[in-house]
Amino acid sequence: MLTIRAANVGDAAVISKLISELAEYEKQSEQVRTTEADILRDGFGEHPEFRVLIAEWHGVPAGFALFFSYYSTWRGAGLYLEDLFVRPELRKRGIGKALLAEVARAAEQEKRVFIRWAVLNWNQSAIAMYRTLGAGFLDEWRTVLLAGEGLKKLTGYLPITVV
Amino acid sequence: MLTIRAANVGDAAVISKLISELAEYEKQSEQVRTTEADILRDGFGEHPEFRVLIAEWHGVPAGFALFFSYYSTWRGAGLYLEDLFVRPELRKRGIGKALLAEVARAAEQEKRVFIRWAVLNWNQSAIAMYRTLGAGFLDEWRTVLLAGEGLKKLTGYLPITVV
Repeated sequence: MLTIRAANVGDAAVISKLISELAEYEKQSEQVRTTEADILRDGFGEHPEFRVLIAEWHGVPAGFALFFSYYSTWRGAGLYLEDLFVRPELRKRGIGKALLAEVARAAEQEKRVFIRWAVLNWNQSAIAMYRTLGAGFLDEWRTVLLAGEGLKKLTGYLPITVV
Repeated sequence: MLTIRAANVGDAAVISKLISELAEYEKQSEQVRTTEADILRDGFGEHPEFRVLIAEWHGVPAGFALFFSYYSTWRGAGLYLEDLFVRPELRKRGIGKALLAEVARAAEQEKRVFIRWAVLNWNQSAIAMYRTLGAGFLDEWRTVLLAGEGLKKLTGYLPITVV
């Protein structure tokens, strides 16, 4: 039996574990720098940065969805789904779709008109599933990330009068 | 002379105008569905969905940056830069970089460790500028968007017990 529930402060450890498992599945484990303490502080503190839904299969954590508010200046308010993951041994049961549907209901309740997320270009099974839902792919856009030294250097750029 | 300032409630009209000009530059004007009233409510109400910086060149609006919080489960808290725009006739003065630097300083002040955004794949001048800043391109990721009928249909999916 599947249950889906909102995560609470006691779930930081399991969320952190699932984040690691997702990164492993994505073959990018070395990129994970957040710890359980980060997830606890950032997700369950005074100003939560994200929300999490946990799927349980017969009481055991099976997967999760982690999302937060996003704003499109074209479409208006939406949700950004940063992570959607189902443990490999529990796939093919509709758990991923059930999680996504819960996120869609959250969007509906809050009058948010879209869900945006990212998928690895080799993850054909996920891509096929998203297509059947009617999702579109924004393939003329490239995602840019500035971090580390580049970001630090830019903070020092102050060419002219800034009020 | 360039000045950069945080937008206030009186700037909704100019922001809405700049959003339209950006969409026109991106050849996607038909996609803009937000109105000045949306920008006013969503950016300057009780729970702002985004923040805006306005660049002025000799007192005239020259461009803007619109951004909000973003959370990476790998890196931690960051900022998402939804829009960065400089009016075509005022380019080549470093205004875009100055706006981006202000966003970088906002990130630094809030201990946010990255800025993420998207660029159209044909916008070579922007891509070249981002490269010189040390930005990376997440080209193995595809951006997915679920909206309209697909989203609505998904809200009705309820296969099993949901707590």
